[in-house]
Amino acid sequence: MKLSEKLTTIDTVRALQWDDGQLRLLDQRRLPEKIEYLSLNNVEQVSAAIRDMVVRGAPAIGIAAAYGFVMAVTESVQESPEDPAKVLVNKTRLLLNARPTAVNLAWAVKRMQTLLDKCEDEPLPALLREAQKIHSEDIQANHRMGEIGAAYLRNCHGVLTHCNTGSLATGGYGTALGVIRSAYGKGYIKSVYAGETRPWLQGSRLTAWELMQDNIPVTLIADSAAAYLMQSGLISWVIVGADRIAANGDVANKIGTYAHAVNANYHNIGFMVVAPVSTIDLQTATSSDIEIEQRNAEELLQFSGNRIAPVGADAFNPVFDITPAELVTVLVTEKGAIASPDQEKISELLRL
Amino acid sequence: MKLSEKLTTIDTVRALQWDDGQLRLLDQRRLPEKIEYLSLNNVEQVSAAIRDMVVRGAPAIGIAAAYGFVMAVTESVQESPEDPAKVLVNKTRLLLNARPTAVNLAWAVKRMQTLLDKCEDEPLPALLREAQKIHSEDIQANHRMGEIGAAYLRNCHGVLTHCNTGSLATGGYGTALGVIRSAYGKGYIKSVYAGETRPWLQGSRLTAWELMQDNIPVTLIADSAAAYLMQSGLISWVIVGADRIAANGDVANKIGTYAHAVNANYHNIGFMVVAPVSTIDLQTATSSDIEIEQRNAEELLQFSGNRIAPVGADAFNPVFDITPAELVTVLVTEKGAIASPDQEKISELLRL
Repeated sequence: MKLSEKLTTIDTVRALQWDDGQLRLLDQRRLPEKIEYLSLNNVEQVSAAIRDMVVRGAPAIGIAAAYGFVMAVTESVQESPEDPAKVLVNKTRLLLNARPTAVNLAWAVKRMQTLLDKCEDEPLPALLREAQKIHSEDIQANHRMGEIGAAYLRNCHGVLTHCNTGSLATGGYGTALGVIRSAYGKGYIKSVYAGETRPWLQGSRLTAWELMQDNIPVTLIADSAAAYLMQSGLISWVIVGADRIAANGDVANKIGTYAHAVNANYHNIGFMVVAPVSTIDLQTATSSDIEIEQRNAEELLQFSGNRIAPVGADAFNPVFDITPAELVTVLVTEKGAIASPDQEKISELLRL
Repeated sequence: MKLSEKLTTIDTVRALQWDDGQLRLLDQRRLPEKIEYLSLNNVEQVSAAIRDMVVRGAPAIGIAAAYGFVMAVTESVQESPEDPAKVLVNKTRLLLNARPTAVNLAWAVKRMQTLLDKCEDEPLPALLREAQKIHSEDIQANHRMGEIGAAYLRNCHGVLTHCNTGSLATGGYGTALGVIRSAYGKGYIKSVYAGETRPWLQGSRLTAWELMQDNIPVTLIADSAAAYLMQSGLISWVIVGADRIAANGDVANKIGTYAHAVNANYHNIGFMVVAPVSTIDLQTATSSDIEIEQRNAEELLQFSGNRIAPVGADAFNPVFDITPAELVTVLVTEKGAIASPDQEKISELLRL
């Protein structure tokens, strides 16, 4: 296969589609067994889909929320033609409260609200264009990050990724998985390892599925086998996404990311974080200001309705953790890459 | 409850029982859903039970193999009264090949063979007594290690353990879990966290079940959440068992142990390895001589017959890893504890 052909076949999956007033979401709770799209018609459904993880991944959540905002404005005008703004506040809150850790959700809602505040007369066509722009800009940003990140991976034998940061987690192409796509397209990478990512198994269910759709070879491991891979010399980079990056470069991401960062540091292996600048939250000075979402213990105690642990067992299920900036080898954004990120370098990048 | 009452109720589970020529094993593949004992009548069944993980845990495997050796001698005499030794070689090999990593298996078989070589006339009564002695000595050693290890845990708020190292993995009481039992009995420990231990989920299925039988409170976590616990100050010791310890102190144990050791080191948290001296293999100079067992990829790709990953997905499933001696804070054996173990200290301990 020629390189040009390879590049066109390595990104075929789309998790979100806007279709004539409806948001169609690939139901990620059903993958890989069922490929099923849900059609959402109102903001309550969009909020529930985000909360219940029909759609997940920080950038994809942001895009879904932008389309949800369009629905929220439509509904507010219908329900209260005299004072739609009052109704909109509640509908917006529904969206904002759906998931607490990813900042892209708040970022997208704020961008939509800012446009709405500027609109005169009929705002809906402009709002829909803005949501579609957020969507397409995300895909473009991912392609750009793919190029920038891949440059670090020349002659890299193996990489490890965590969770799902691909087309399923974004508008398309992916953040960390976009870098892996680009590097694979260029022939830089021989082996891609994916941690299964307990408890929700995004690695096994989503990353493996997505890469298999695009014929990119992938090998799953137990999350706890990552250090053994490093010790055995099987990987030279860990590549992850981010749900929120604080102003000082601390990274909130899927539980297990921090352990990988500590282990990468111990083994002198590169640790790359790939995220659009919308993930950087200057309002969050350091990681101590980031709320870590705890999800239901049952996510650990059951699988597909089968109990794993004894009835009555207790579990602690934080689904994100914090990687301090000093463990990040390079932060890749669509505006450029920063080695050893810190507050000064990040604010300089954002000024560009 | 008085302390004396507490101590009698914290060790009620037994995984192995010898019953008039039969080895009864609690089928650990069925826990926690079903409490079912299998009765094994011949060495082939014992070998299969070890291979298929009806019984697991290095010390328990050693005890099962000792009883299996008694059956092997019985069968050899029956099948070939003229030259039982020749038949016995094959039956012994069946036992030895059942699992490659745990050294207790080879240790127990060797101890039984050494006694057999000394026996004149009818060896079976003496062999059975020896197997029962291996069994009861293991329980005594665990109680002794419990006392020695618990002394390190005074005023310890929380501990993390990995895999199952309790009554289910030993003759009774447990190694790492024995230390936790002792420390809990003395009122030293407030919280016990157990990693679920992918892929086989020994933590969720076995450790949680066993501790719940004995009313010791336990909280399960995803293995990848351990570093977050450490960062959050929730634990002050990681306590694990061992499948084999090399002469220099390198530790082979359940996959994920090494990542916990690296993270404990990074967070200045104690890392305790608890194992009887039978786990120390002086024939193994360093960890590079230890074979790491790879098990079937399906252990990662399915759960209870339900697929996790897409059909055709690839997985890498090493089930042990190596923790270098320099990451071990203290090694606890029934002969005493060694801080920062190395070859010299270990050979000195074994000379005692």
